[in-house]
Amino acid sequence: MPAVEPLRDPNSLKRLLAPRSFAVVGVSAEPTGFGARTVQNMKNFDGPVWCVNPKYAGQELHGRPCYASIDDLPGVPDSAVIALPRPGVMAAVEALAGKGGGGAAIYASGYGETDLPERAVEEQVLRDRARALGFPLLGANCLGYVDHRQSVGATFMPDYVKMTAPVGGVGVVSQSGALGYALMQAAERGFAMCHMATAGNATDLDVCDLAAFQLTIPECRSVALVVEGLRDARRLFALGDLARDLGKAIVVLKLGRGEIGAQAAMSHTGSLAGSTAAWTAGFKRAGMLEVEDFDAMLEAAGFFAKSGPPKTKGRGVGIVTPSGGAGIMSADHAEFAGLDLPQPAPATEKVLRAAIPDFGSPRNPCDLTAQVATNPKSFEECMDAMLADEQYAAIVFPVVYHNPAPAATPQRMKTLNPMSANSGKPICISWIPESLEGAGPEAADASSHLSLFRSTRRMMNTLRLWFDHHGERPAPGAIDAIAEAAARAIPAGESTLMEAAAKSAFAAAGLPVVDERRATTAEEAVAAATALGFPVVLKVDSPDIAHKTEVGGVQLNLGDAAAVTAAFARIMEGARTHAPKARIDGVLVQRMEARGVELILGARRDPQFGTMVLVGLGGVQAELWKDVTLDVAPVSPEGALAMLKSLKAFPLLDGFRGSAKVDIEAVAAAVARFSGFVAALGERLEEAEINPLVCRENGCVAVDGLMKLSG
Amino acid sequence: MPAVEPLRDPNSLKRLLAPRSFAVVGVSAEPTGFGARTVQNMKNFDGPVWCVNPKYAGQELHGRPCYASIDDLPGVPDSAVIALPRPGVMAAVEALAGKGGGGAAIYASGYGETDLPERAVEEQVLRDRARALGFPLLGANCLGYVDHRQSVGATFMPDYVKMTAPVGGVGVVSQSGALGYALMQAAERGFAMCHMATAGNATDLDVCDLAAFQLTIPECRSVALVVEGLRDARRLFALGDLARDLGKAIVVLKLGRGEIGAQAAMSHTGSLAGSTAAWTAGFKRAGMLEVEDFDAMLEAAGFFAKSGPPKTKGRGVGIVTPSGGAGIMSADHAEFAGLDLPQPAPATEKVLRAAIPDFGSPRNPCDLTAQVATNPKSFEECMDAMLADEQYAAIVFPVVYHNPAPAATPQRMKTLNPMSANSGKPICISWIPESLEGAGPEAADASSHLSLFRSTRRMMNTLRLWFDHHGERPAPGAIDAIAEAAARAIPAGESTLMEAAAKSAFAAAGLPVVDERRATTAEEAVAAATALGFPVVLKVDSPDIAHKTEVGGVQLNLGDAAAVTAAFARIMEGARTHAPKARIDGVLVQRMEARGVELILGARRDPQFGTMVLVGLGGVQAELWKDVTLDVAPVSPEGALAMLKSLKAFPLLDGFRGSAKVDIEAVAAAVARFSGFVAALGERLEEAEINPLVCRENGCVAVDGLMKLSG
Repeated sequence: MPAVEPLRDPNSLKRLLAPRSFAVVGVSAEPTGFGARTVQNMKNFDGPVWCVNPKYAGQELHGRPCYASIDDLPGVPDSAVIALPRPGVMAAVEALAGKGGGGAAIYASGYGETDLPERAVEEQVLRDRARALGFPLLGANCLGYVDHRQSVGATFMPDYVKMTAPVGGVGVVSQSGALGYALMQAAERGFAMCHMATAGNATDLDVCDLAAFQLTIPECRSVALVVEGLRDARRLFALGDLARDLGKAIVVLKLGRGEIGAQAAMSHTGSLAGSTAAWTAGFKRAGMLEVEDFDAMLEAAGFFAKSGPPKTKGRGVGIVTPSGGAGIMSADHAEFAGLDLPQPAPATEKVLRAAIPDFGSPRNPCDLTAQVATNPKSFEECMDAMLADEQYAAIVFPVVYHNPAPAATPQRMKTLNPMSANSGKPICISWIPESLEGAGPEAADASSHLSLFRSTRRMMNTLRLWFDHHGERPAPGAIDAIAEAAARAIPAGESTLMEAAAKSAFAAAGLPVVDERRATTAEEAVAAATALGFPVVLKVDSPDIAHKTEVGGVQLNLGDAAAVTAAFARIMEGARTHAPKARIDGVLVQRMEARGVELILGARRDPQFGTMVLVGLGGVQAELWKDVTLDVAPVSPEGALAMLKSLKAFPLLDGFRGSAKVDIEAVAAAVARFSGFVAALGERLEEAEINPLVCRENGCVAVDGLMKLSG
Repeated sequence: MPAVEPLRDPNSLKRLLAPRSFAVVGVSAEPTGFGARTVQNMKNFDGPVWCVNPKYAGQELHGRPCYASIDDLPGVPDSAVIALPRPGVMAAVEALAGKGGGGAAIYASGYGETDLPERAVEEQVLRDRARALGFPLLGANCLGYVDHRQSVGATFMPDYVKMTAPVGGVGVVSQSGALGYALMQAAERGFAMCHMATAGNATDLDVCDLAAFQLTIPECRSVALVVEGLRDARRLFALGDLARDLGKAIVVLKLGRGEIGAQAAMSHTGSLAGSTAAWTAGFKRAGMLEVEDFDAMLEAAGFFAKSGPPKTKGRGVGIVTPSGGAGIMSADHAEFAGLDLPQPAPATEKVLRAAIPDFGSPRNPCDLTAQVATNPKSFEECMDAMLADEQYAAIVFPVVYHNPAPAATPQRMKTLNPMSANSGKPICISWIPESLEGAGPEAADASSHLSLFRSTRRMMNTLRLWFDHHGERPAPGAIDAIAEAAARAIPAGESTLMEAAAKSAFAAAGLPVVDERRATTAEEAVAAATALGFPVVLKVDSPDIAHKTEVGGVQLNLGDAAAVTAAFARIMEGARTHAPKARIDGVLVQRMEARGVELILGARRDPQFGTMVLVGLGGVQAELWKDVTLDVAPVSPEGALAMLKSLKAFPLLDGFRGSAKVDIEAVAAAVARFSGFVAALGERLEEAEINPLVCRENGCVAVDGLMKLSG
């Protein structure tokens, strides 16, 4: 894997993505043409907009002056859209760069995404040339971008000028142009955004570069990021670091998570897919907030744009509602999302009880009844009491009527917004009416502190993300000198390390492995067993036998010399019968390990994120429960502990049904050490496995293992 | 449990819920009063609307004539709304009934939902009086109803007259008035409904009665039903039968599924909660389609109102899209929902390949590209080919642009609607733009055959429900004579049946139980063991010891007489030491059963659905995996088989990793028999358990069990 390409300096993209002057190259008189629509979308932009088309030189096109060529432009365009078919693109790029332009968006498709090798080459040439010229490119095969702050509608999608929503804290970045524009259309219903950019083929700039640019926009507080694939997903880590440093959030949706979707994504964008579990682990590692579907993107990004970290400990949410049904619904989804619904503190309950009539409920969920909800004084008293209660990190307020009267929703938002601002706690408006747009939701979206959700389920899932995001995050892992030395000690050359060699390597890396000796005769085996102490296990030692039990190659619980002698004979006989061509180096003699909880540790290379480490429940039912967790290697001991705790089987380690607690610190240390070692192997690693790692009260031990290396 | 109250005859509710004349009792001049708003909401109703208020007798109120009393009305009101405070309700009911009215809706609250015992009595008296008079009541504590076919807005919620959507196939019934009206507000954005009714306290009519009424409306094709609780949930079965007989669908959302939500629901509506798992099992048994959240209600109901059963076998869905990103997103959620995405048949692919350019994809998902999507001829060719492909039961078409031009969404809907009608296959429009309302979605909602979804995830989940609903459904279970006799054989009186007695009862009910003998001395135990055949198990037999292993009361794998003698002594010693006060009847001597897959069978009474049967994975890790399934007892052997197949651990029964397959028919038969027996016990049953049921290649056997009965 080559070194990670650093993110493009956001300052170098300022002219391209936040221009003061603009050119559209390739505009016809036909108003539905891509260039023409772009010019129309620039209508409210303050700076100059120049059209380029030799056919209309000296005339006006769609209200803007037209020039014969880029060279003829009366000024230097900060940004340009190249609305020409593919064959004309390269010349336009060179002319714009020659003129001193700051970059261009390319609409044309037909490059690498076609599966035609010559087109991939053409795209590579374009990228190399643009980079040599220091001229950044958006696209190719993209829909352009929107800088909502300056009304720059640098896109061929229709009717950007109709999107008159105010500027807000959310940036949108999408590889898929259609999906980016689908999000942008929220501006038609008043949702406040600041910038939208589509990467398309990412010939030059990818979604990471674009998101990094948006993060540096002062108005931007969060980015909604749609990813199909990347040339190098490790760029997400740098992007995540930038977001953390700036105190801004990235909400991310991965497309191509299913098998067929992943295939389609590879074909659609020409990028490597990587495994879905690896992407999820990578997003988490990057500190990004992965959502389950497109529907959640803007709501979550809007919430994070408006909400700081929780001011209280715990995951308590308070529900205040004029509708009993809506309160129950909110409580259901809060519980499904793993949030807490503490009951009001005595001081809070006193206020509620005084205000709420007997057919309401001074509890959590708090059913104000319509009577209190429509009485401004009582309403504010109750809401203030709930906001002041230290058990609640956020307050949820469901709205059930669309029309302004009698609930006067816009007025209600004016009441609630300063309450949220002053208390420092988010107030989440859950919009229940099936009438989806209008003055009510617009007022919430336009407010500085209220977050609107059109789904109770998504609202609670967003709050869960919020608590997770601001919870403790384990320190990153590291490759230490021992791991590096152990990795270097493995001789070069493609190879499979069978049980004994693999465990030797793990031991060199500092992992606890079972005590064992090699023996080539029954006598040596008896001597080894005597030295190790009975009972012992005998295992066939052969570079050609991977599945030892299938050839009778594992003999357990041998209590004395006679048993060892007999077992040695059985193993040799089994190998002769079932694997007559296998080279037999002898047997491994191991101490018979006491029982414990069996885990599997695994490692493999992901095409996107490099070395990944896996921890899962082992044993005969492992395949059934598929209880595994994945992270990017290396992980720290704290990170390993978090992995262990995320297993459904974690209670087995933690004293399940009265059994002794496993030494979890030791297990976490072993996982961290394993992850450092496999990471130190870098690209040489194909896969590594410890199965089982037997975990007990007094530590853990690797009983069997395997490694596959290349190069 | 009393007998199930039959559903109210829908014909008897016609005057109340689909009136030709209407009275509002309690109208003031103040336009925001509940009565006044009701009169305003009746504006477009064709029949007479009479106001009642002695203060304005002889005048007009809000454009309608006002009378001094109900007796003074110039005609008989089919339906009335009583907009009076609680103290005036009973007199109004009696006067309306006396006048010959067809029923009334009651807005007033403050009855049983207050937790004041005298108010519960007041509500009971009202119910009894109304039933004695044959005068049906909607509410109390309800928001009224809407008969959209006749523009009857019999509700105090504002602005019904603004809801001008056409009449459509969806009926809405909600216990919570606010949530029912929240769904109704979809009519503001063009969603086509026919009727909406809110049950409130369900003093007389509950949501089942209201849904049954809507099902008999000719225009109604599906009902969206929101349930908090019911006095008797078994009424859902009669409602489900009616829906099946009429070929109509019921989409249901249960509120109060979480612990706190359930508590709030009980307090809110005064109904019993029952367990969430029991409700889910009950809905399934009733053939209703349970959705996970409110967001899914109308979309799912709309889909079922427009779509017949699948025309093809399997769960194949075809995705056709102008956006690669939207296609990938659709594929992801199809896979998450367990749907199939078969690739086009050769004949289909030929058509697609001829039409689609090289940067698109003639596959599934089929990326038409904007080029084909905007060419009517190519578009129709591709869509027709996909619809004709027998692998696809439904076609999904994502729309990514809001504005009519250039995609001309309303025109597109006009093209697609006859394609769906003619092919007999649903076309699902997935609406991706974050601009949520407008001409495009309205056109889809108004069409006769297209179903609109604003969420890809919800769309695919609805298709999964569709396939499930039209899949094979197991026959219902029955209580046979053997089960009845076994139930009758247990003497009356509250009692706990310990292991031996419980297994005797199970054996009497025809279940296979382990072969065992009682013994009171070591000599008898040896004789019993010899008769049964070694090895055996000894277990303490005491009515006072429920947890036998904890007192050393279980001795396994005893191979000979000496071992049995020693074990007997150990058991007696253990009982003396650990349970000195326990009565000891002796020991049970059982054949030591070979190993097998251990299941748990359980039964208990649900306050809503009566006897429920549970099947789950047993063994030491049962508590960890919580792999259990629940159904309403009794279940048929096919029903039991479906339960077993729904377990995550089902592969363990089905030859997991080369182990022998369990005799699943025998296990299913045992589950069915157990369920029949516990159902035969009726209300006497508190709980029953077989743990473990050991399942093997050659059958299954109950090794331990327990029953608790009352009365």
